[in-house]
Amino acid sequence: MSQKKQLNIALIGTGFMGRTHSNGYRRIPNFFPDLQYQPVLKTVCSRNEEKTRAFAEQWGYEKVETDWKKVIADSSIDAVDICTPNDTHAEIAIAAAERGKMVLCEKPLARTLAESKTMVEAIEKAGVANTVWYNYRRLPAVTLAKQIIDSGKLGRIFHYRANFLQDWTINANLPQGGAGLWRMDADVAGSGVTGDLLSHCIDTAIWLNGSISNVTAMTETFVKERMHQLTGKVEKVKIDDACAFLCRFENGSLGLFESTRYARGHKALYTFEINGENASIRWDLHDLNRLEYFENSDDSQLRGWRSIHVTDGEQPYMNKWWVPGLGIGYEHSFVHQVADFLRSLENNTPCSPTFREAYETQAVCEAVLSSAAAGTWENVNFAIK
Amino acid sequence: MSQKKQLNIALIGTGFMGRTHSNGYRRIPNFFPDLQYQPVLKTVCSRNEEKTRAFAEQWGYEKVETDWKKVIADSSIDAVDICTPNDTHAEIAIAAAERGKMVLCEKPLARTLAESKTMVEAIEKAGVANTVWYNYRRLPAVTLAKQIIDSGKLGRIFHYRANFLQDWTINANLPQGGAGLWRMDADVAGSGVTGDLLSHCIDTAIWLNGSISNVTAMTETFVKERMHQLTGKVEKVKIDDACAFLCRFENGSLGLFESTRYARGHKALYTFEINGENASIRWDLHDLNRLEYFENSDDSQLRGWRSIHVTDGEQPYMNKWWVPGLGIGYEHSFVHQVADFLRSLENNTPCSPTFREAYETQAVCEAVLSSAAAGTWENVNFAIK
Amino acid sequence: MSQKKQLNIALIGTGFMGRTHSNGYRRIPNFFPDLQYQPVLKTVCSRNEEKTRAFAEQWGYEKVETDWKKVIADSSIDAVDICTPNDTHAEIAIAAAERGKMVLCEKPLARTLAESKTMVEAIEKAGVANTVWYNYRRLPAVTLAKQIIDSGKLGRIFHYRANFLQDWTINANLPQGGAGLWRMDADVAGSGVTGDLLSHCIDTAIWLNGSISNVTAMTETFVKERMHQLTGKVEKVKIDDACAFLCRFENGSLGLFESTRYARGHKALYTFEINGENASIRWDLHDLNRLEYFENSDDSQLRGWRSIHVTDGEQPYMNKWWVPGLGIGYEHSFVHQVADFLRSLENNTPCSPTFREAYETQAVCEAVLSSAAAGTWENVNFAIK
Amino acid sequence: MSQKKQLNIALIGTGFMGRTHSNGYRRIPNFFPDLQYQPVLKTVCSRNEEKTRAFAEQWGYEKVETDWKKVIADSSIDAVDICTPNDTHAEIAIAAAERGKMVLCEKPLARTLAESKTMVEAIEKAGVANTVWYNYRRLPAVTLAKQIIDSGKLGRIFHYRANFLQDWTINANLPQGGAGLWRMDADVAGSGVTGDLLSHCIDTAIWLNGSISNVTAMTETFVKERMHQLTGKVEKVKIDDACAFLCRFENGSLGLFESTRYARGHKALYTFEINGENASIRWDLHDLNRLEYFENSDDSQLRGWRSIHVTDGEQPYMNKWWVPGLGIGYEHSFVHQVADFLRSLENNTPCSPTFREAYETQAVCEAVLSSAAAGTWENVNFAIK
Repeated sequence: MSQKKQLNIALIGTGFMGRTHSNGYRRIPNFFPDLQYQPVLKTVCSRNEEKTRAFAEQWGYEKVETDWKKVIADSSIDAVDICTPNDTHAEIAIAAAERGKMVLCEKPLARTLAESKTMVEAIEKAGVANTVWYNYRRLPAVTLAKQIIDSGKLGRIFHYRANFLQDWTINANLPQGGAGLWRMDADVAGSGVTGDLLSHCIDTAIWLNGSISNVTAMTETFVKERMHQLTGKVEKVKIDDACAFLCRFENGSLGLFESTRYARGHKALYTFEINGENASIRWDLHDLNRLEYFENSDDSQLRGWRSIHVTDGEQPYMNKWWVPGLGIGYEHSFVHQVADFLRSLENNTPCSPTFREAYETQAVCEAVLSSAAAGTWENVNFAIK
Repeated sequence: MSQKKQLNIALIGTGFMGRTHSNGYRRIPNFFPDLQYQPVLKTVCSRNEEKTRAFAEQWGYEKVETDWKKVIADSSIDAVDICTPNDTHAEIAIAAAERGKMVLCEKPLARTLAESKTMVEAIEKAGVANTVWYNYRRLPAVTLAKQIIDSGKLGRIFHYRANFLQDWTINANLPQGGAGLWRMDADVAGSGVTGDLLSHCIDTAIWLNGSISNVTAMTETFVKERMHQLTGKVEKVKIDDACAFLCRFENGSLGLFESTRYARGHKALYTFEINGENASIRWDLHDLNRLEYFENSDDSQLRGWRSIHVTDGEQPYMNKWWVPGLGIGYEHSFVHQVADFLRSLENNTPCSPTFREAYETQAVCEAVLSSAAAGTWENVNFAIK
Repeated sequence: MSQKKQLNIALIGTGFMGRTHSNGYRRIPNFFPDLQYQPVLKTVCSRNEEKTRAFAEQWGYEKVETDWKKVIADSSIDAVDICTPNDTHAEIAIAAAERGKMVLCEKPLARTLAESKTMVEAIEKAGVANTVWYNYRRLPAVTLAKQIIDSGKLGRIFHYRANFLQDWTINANLPQGGAGLWRMDADVAGSGVTGDLLSHCIDTAIWLNGSISNVTAMTETFVKERMHQLTGKVEKVKIDDACAFLCRFENGSLGLFESTRYARGHKALYTFEINGENASIRWDLHDLNRLEYFENSDDSQLRGWRSIHVTDGEQPYMNKWWVPGLGIGYEHSFVHQVADFLRSLENNTPCSPTFREAYETQAVCEAVLSSAAAGTWENVNFAIK
Repeated sequence: MSQKKQLNIALIGTGFMGRTHSNGYRRIPNFFPDLQYQPVLKTVCSRNEEKTRAFAEQWGYEKVETDWKKVIADSSIDAVDICTPNDTHAEIAIAAAERGKMVLCEKPLARTLAESKTMVEAIEKAGVANTVWYNYRRLPAVTLAKQIIDSGKLGRIFHYRANFLQDWTINANLPQGGAGLWRMDADVAGSGVTGDLLSHCIDTAIWLNGSISNVTAMTETFVKERMHQLTGKVEKVKIDDACAFLCRFENGSLGLFESTRYARGHKALYTFEINGENASIRWDLHDLNRLEYFENSDDSQLRGWRSIHVTDGEQPYMNKWWVPGLGIGYEHSFVHQVADFLRSLENNTPCSPTFREAYETQAVCEAVLSSAAAGTWENVNFAIK
């Protein structure tokens, strides 16, 4: 490993995403040993010292901190990975960028478009490497979809539709806010399913099908009041429990998006489908190793949706793993994002989605929420001078 | 058959729907021999005498007409079945009702809400038995869905979504209008996919989930000009090739509907899904003998979407057909609608959907098209004094 | 219909198969009006006069008989269709053939190979048109499989496997023998699942993949004693409840077959799969409108099992029915067999499977049962001088 | 980690299985940090020093060896993990056991039953902890199947069927023997698909359904001669390319097993199904996070195969990973086996399958191959004094 360059990572946040990212770094030496940059888990930071210490031991971080400002002040740190709740992304990211750190930020970029804008400006002013963890792009079947589309096989695109359906908040006794439940507190999260789930769908959609021009949306909060864990009081729920929107893409195709945490029977059913003149594609996170593909030029009697088990070595990322037929899981998307980030350092290229690209996703979310509030069509505006 | 009452049927129109209805009548004596009313195929009427004669011979109609006015003037006719293009529904239905004929009208009721209103008024003034051929309700799996919902097993409803996806008009060289293609001529059809396909989705949705309050919609015509078969000229295409809308139901649930003839790879993919607090249901016309069902009260480790093969004798309509595991097809929905119409005569009850019920579907279609034109949310108004 | 030739049919037997065959004849004028021969439902015969009369009325038979000998003595009858239990096939078929009647015999041909042999000899001596109702061949997806194989697309064949799984006799309180349950009485049926279900699998297999050379088999009777409906006594069950066998085909491929009535959760799950050097095919009766197809020459990244919805007009038989995407059902296989029989009369060609072809299937069944009894590999011998 | 006990591991063999096992050990501190024993990757051994050194660096082994005898002579080693080709399992395992090392042996235990017997005797004489890597048991869906069966929900078992289908050796130009292809050399592997693939099916079957009494089998070698990589000559292929067998279990149920490397379109399609009186289960390695389950006691109109997405935290092993809906992959089965081995040390219990249990699987394989050779039913004899 002598010629390898070490990239010292500091992780801020030790929740669910802290685990997925840590695992992403830990797998690199085993599965992507040929990358020039290899991550070193230098510091982990979270408010509760005891828990952070346990986390550090579990994942092999060298150092523990409880104040993120000390972390970004540490000159040995090359890159700061932000896994904290959404309300802290902007402050940490901007401070880190100003210190010249690379920044890897969990999605969504921030609570609002305005917050996001300050982040993009700071990161671009600092000129540091940056990426946002829209990890689903890096599942092999999704990357294969991108390759197929880029090959031109679909022809003119007519339709794009995506869903992200969950059911974990149906129980009206589930409290809101606080540990494990900050996603239900609008002050912390910025929004409900729009920022949490639809942002994934939008990121993938823009990547696969280009920019979204305008939207009309509808949101709903099915359970109006819930006990807040931090105040101990029953309070109004301000997040969107469900959100759906229609849109037009710049390429002339029509879009249909929906997300909810009230779709009984679905745990994390992220699906998308894209219909082109000559071919169509669809995918489903619950069967993440498959891509379904329909090609109209097939012999007309033998034409049908193909169920591609995306596990052969020639498929995206798969030469790093096992043999044909043996699938990978959700966590591998994070390993791939780390690998792509490290390779982008090698190649001195941006690692998509950058903050600027994630800002466009944020702009769509903002237009969606505005449309739902106003009952009007809204244009998506993501220009930054 | 001596005690049976004969119901003399006159069929107007000999296209695709003329065939499905004729088959519906023909199967009754074999599969529903116990019904008191048995249909007699008295007269078939269409403009081309030779073709109509061939149709009559094939299906066993006793008499051939080329002028529908003679048909409704014929006092031996009990019921008039209208299978002609949409622009003629109103005139024929109203005239038939005024003559005291029962009327079975192919969907959609008419081209516009205004036309439909005159039909409802005429039919109700005449007080004759009536029904509209929203046949998909009568597939056993769909009727089972209705029974499950009526049982209360779903609890509070959160979401309803439906698609009707086809791909037969992608080819830009396909002409519009005239024989076999009147569905692409807005003057004849009234609209494109909205009246032709979404109307099915809306009918089922209202039946299963109640009235729709308001909508926001988007339509598109992907191929702007096509050769018109009747004029021989390239003309502007005025139908909607695709239509999607968001809506709110009166029960507080959210709806998402989409239809297109540009979804490469899908022939007649009518699907719907309904998510309730305690259970969810979904269905797909391409596998029409199955209903998928998720029940949250199942043991949590053994919970999963159930794939119900709706073929056992205790399932709706299935005691008339074969044995468990042996499926039926599309055409059976029409046989069931005939059977239900005949039974409603026996019981002196309305045969749903009646003209009035189909009028509500028409009102949703109208609100959808208005919304798409204006870019605004539109209320659904289906009140008739 | 003046130039049409009428084919006077006599149906012997009014059980489940009597219904499927009657429906087969009844649909011909509506869906295959161009056939020169059109069936006329002349006579139906069964032992119980009242029930037979009701059956005749329901299906439109002109005449009722209770003695099959009178039926075959009737010179107005052109063709005798045998739907009675297996123990009567030979006597009726031979007598009918000797009278010069065409014979359509329900499968299996008979209880034993010896019985079958007398039938083949009689029918060939008489030189009359004949066919055996192995109806599943005539489902469009299965016929498409045949066309693909005949095209050579599969290359050298390595594997053939088929299952026919049911679960209707698990209940130990189900009686055996008598009305509705003769299939559980070995004296009447000849065997259990081997003759009833595996015979279908074998017929399809020989049609698609050629002759079977030798077999090793295993049978089991899970419930050893059941009340016999005719004697009122608990008697030993002599049929095979389950049967599985391995075999070698003459083309060098390996076969694997299994049938049971004890596969909880499966109603009529007839499936087959064939693996060739260049392509593979599989099919499932529970989704009978689909054929799955894998073609190795597809681009390696885009290769996957294709789910062909076999409903387009260019698919076998489908130009007679509806439009793309709209499926047909189980019963249509019988309509197609009638149509093919009538066309074979037009063309003066045999209607496969003939008695002789069904005799080969019987020989495989016999080898299977012998092998299971002896615990040895058995050759299939279907030579008739 | 102070109170943790370190378990020093030596890995022999650096092929595909060397990677899966190494990954298994590496994930333990991150995902099973609460286990008392934590693995230390002490030594890796393989014949090619350079490659072994690279492997050691990639996976973090402290020491490199090229002679396995030195490894087992090293007193710092607690456990020897054997991932070499089958012909070396016995010698290494016996020597390691004699030195008092724990032994984890890749499947199948050995080439023959006789070889296996010497291994069982040595390991039991030494009294060391041992296990065999039949990893598929440890996929959550498969372990859930075991729990369901153990709960008694299936009732009396009637049928067990399993397949393991691949297609990677269809190409007749693929050589045999030598690096990457020793599985095609009978002298090294012992057998073809029987030892490589059917052994997995048999291990799972015995675990889920108990012992197999007797078998009748069929094998085939489709490509008779291939270039041998080590000799450079075209030589006779002595392995079984395909193998199928019927069997009876001691509990009275019937079994059907098949494996091949000539099933075009299937990469690693390991499936099993078990039919009981009251419920049935099926599973498929290509969708490894799902278990399908049918329960007859469900309401008869709502009964259907349930598709259980086995990802909730209460499912076997899943509380260690992510959140509901987010699947894991093939590699996790090895992590689970390591975890179970370590926990068995904590609890001082055997880690199933032990050498003795794997010996039973070997005995079935031997009976299968004997039956195929002799054309007779063979009893399974796995008694060891």
